Amino acid sequence: MTASTASQAASALDLPGIRHAVDIALEEFLGRKADTAVDGHLPSEITELLHNFLFVGGKRLRPLLCVIGWYAAEGRGDLRPVIRAAASLEMFHAFALIHDDVMDRSATRRGQPTVHRQLAALHGDGRNHREGEHLGASAAVLVGDLALAWSDELLHTAGLSRDQLARVRPLVDSMRTEVMYGQYLDLLTTGLLTGNVVSALEVIRYKTAKYTVERPLHIGAALAGADATALAVCTAFALPLGEGFQLRDDLLGAFGKPETTGKSHSDDLREGKHTVLIALALRHADSDQHAALRALIGNPALTDDDAARIRGILTATGARDRVEHMIHTCLRQARHTLDTAPFPRAATDALRYIADAAATRTS
Amino acid sequence: MTASTASQAASALDLPGIRHAVDIALEEFLGRKADTAVDGHLPSEITELLHNFLFVGGKRLRPLLCVIGWYAAEGRGDLRPVIRAAASLEMFHAFALIHDDVMDRSATRRGQPTVHRQLAALHGDGRNHREGEHLGASAAVLVGDLALAWSDELLHTAGLSRDQLARVRPLVDSMRTEVMYGQYLDLLTTGLLTGNVVSALEVIRYKTAKYTVERPLHIGAALAGADATALAVCTAFALPLGEGFQLRDDLLGAFGKPETTGKSHSDDLREGKHTVLIALALRHADSDQHAALRALIGNPALTDDDAARIRGILTATGARDRVEHMIHTCLRQARHTLDTAPFPRAATDALRYIADAAATRTS
Repeated sequence: MTASTASQAASALDLPGIRHAVDIALEEFLGRKADTAVDGHLPSEITELLHNFLFVGGKRLRPLLCVIGWYAAEGRGDLRPVIRAAASLEMFHAFALIHDDVMDRSATRRGQPTVHRQLAALHGDGRNHREGEHLGASAAVLVGDLALAWSDELLHTAGLSRDQLARVRPLVDSMRTEVMYGQYLDLLTTGLLTGNVVSALEVIRYKTAKYTVERPLHIGAALAGADATALAVCTAFALPLGEGFQLRDDLLGAFGKPETTGKSHSDDLREGKHTVLIALALRHADSDQHAALRALIGNPALTDDDAARIRGILTATGARDRVEHMIHTCLRQARHTLDTAPFPRAATDALRYIADAAATRTS
Repeated sequence: MTASTASQAASALDLPGIRHAVDIALEEFLGRKADTAVDGHLPSEITELLHNFLFVGGKRLRPLLCVIGWYAAEGRGDLRPVIRAAASLEMFHAFALIHDDVMDRSATRRGQPTVHRQLAALHGDGRNHREGEHLGASAAVLVGDLALAWSDELLHTAGLSRDQLARVRPLVDSMRTEVMYGQYLDLLTTGLLTGNVVSALEVIRYKTAKYTVERPLHIGAALAGADATALAVCTAFALPLGEGFQLRDDLLGAFGKPETTGKSHSDDLREGKHTVLIALALRHADSDQHAALRALIGNPALTDDDAARIRGILTATGARDRVEHMIHTCLRQARHTLDTAPFPRAATDALRYIADAAATRTS
């Protein structure tokens, strides 16, 4: 995709083209980092791992929302700095996922071994299993740290004007703090099985709704100089969409097909993740179902049969249907906001497309 | 300390005053973060843990070097933004130490349980020991992530001019990348006992000499608008001082008094850290000593008697004396650079004071 002109905002947004441009920005940045590592006789595996992690999959949802936010606020002029700022969100997301996978002890992501598993395999030779695991987790924490530092570098070397940078800085700061607190809450509630739907929704708000949807839209809109009203409309669309998106993720985490989602459908259950789905099941379970859920969820030795039994209870208690209904309500609310949003048609259409994809996604 | 005027550069630098001003900047920043957490009904323990970690100890070496770098390059005008930029280095260092302690599985730091141990104690109730440990480590990784994000926020909200910010950004980027690669190298070589002194010195170069001394000086000097010559003189002073500083750290890690250093003097040995001290001992050990070192170093079940035996061998092989001699050479070289450095007298005196303190420190 070449640099945009104002006329583009009038026609449909080229989402695959935006995605491609974001990928090129990531590729160029990591290429320079790989060159620097070679020059300093530093290990090349870190940039290789990150490159592989970024390019084996990923929906680029946050960069897309960032660029759509720019169009929504009637951004004008050179799109390239906006694309690089959008790419910085994907690099940040790589950091978040790599650290999350260490914390959740996940074995696969995007159909591949997780970064910590790859590093344990790469450097575990001559160490016992537990030492190899610890080394892999430690090295993955560092790879994540680098992705976080580099996301920052991508942002402030994006070629944004000083005014643009000054406008987005507080939003990026908020985004980082919010998702880290969200993950912290997620961590503390994991393994503590309760029927508390409100606390599960609070984690979703910080960890997904604000982080994945609201802040990327805000950042893009702020780059275009959006006023407070435009940001408020972004929020009104983003929070229900983000909630629906995460509820779908929770359903896929339990009922998804691993060959489609690229991750296990037992990890969340084995780890004892405190999702709305689980909270609703506990709340509506009879005493036998309740006892079974408490005995099985969060058990590190969970078998496939155990996981299948949990799935049966999630369905039988109506929790699965209730979550489907919540997703439906969230997405209706998000779409409703779009009906009256003061955005150019192309931006509204793109947001509607993303909302539809979030509702029906299988990965 | 009040805002500096140019006349101060002529007299001796008030290092305790600078340190105090840095502490106030950290305190104010964390206070605002604590308020934000309260407003968002988020856990207050993260800011409390960071506050405690920062204020229970720490030499503030990096902030001091940053401010001295500013004076060395004849900085003029309001010192307050420089102090806040210096404070951001201390917040970054909190991130680095908290993550390092997780990776090294250290039990104590600054005379207190490490952050991951505190978090395991705080939230481990009702979980088995290993699960509690994993939760503590995961939560500490997140607290470190927040410290990293907040160090960035401290920097770009320091009140620096846009020109100052543009000058220091690439240096801060380099500093982060260098220390993360250094820690990565450290991690990969830990537990692999070899007599390779060169690779141990390479880790020191990235992890300490550049990170702890060179980059803080560069950042301070760049804030004052230093030219390439001034930065080169900073490097010529910084790299040997940093090497000497880390070699002293390695000696303290094996021979220091825990009640003075605030950390165990067996952790490095138990973890199998690949230090210059150990590499030299392996290189000069006879076959019995060599076998004993290989059997004991890196043994997770290392006893106090084992550690005492290793210390005996480190001394008997002459490794301890050789490291003392290397420290002496490094510091002589650093001091020699100061003799002809084109810096104001007050800055040179302060750097000389820091070099002397690094040579003789016991903690």
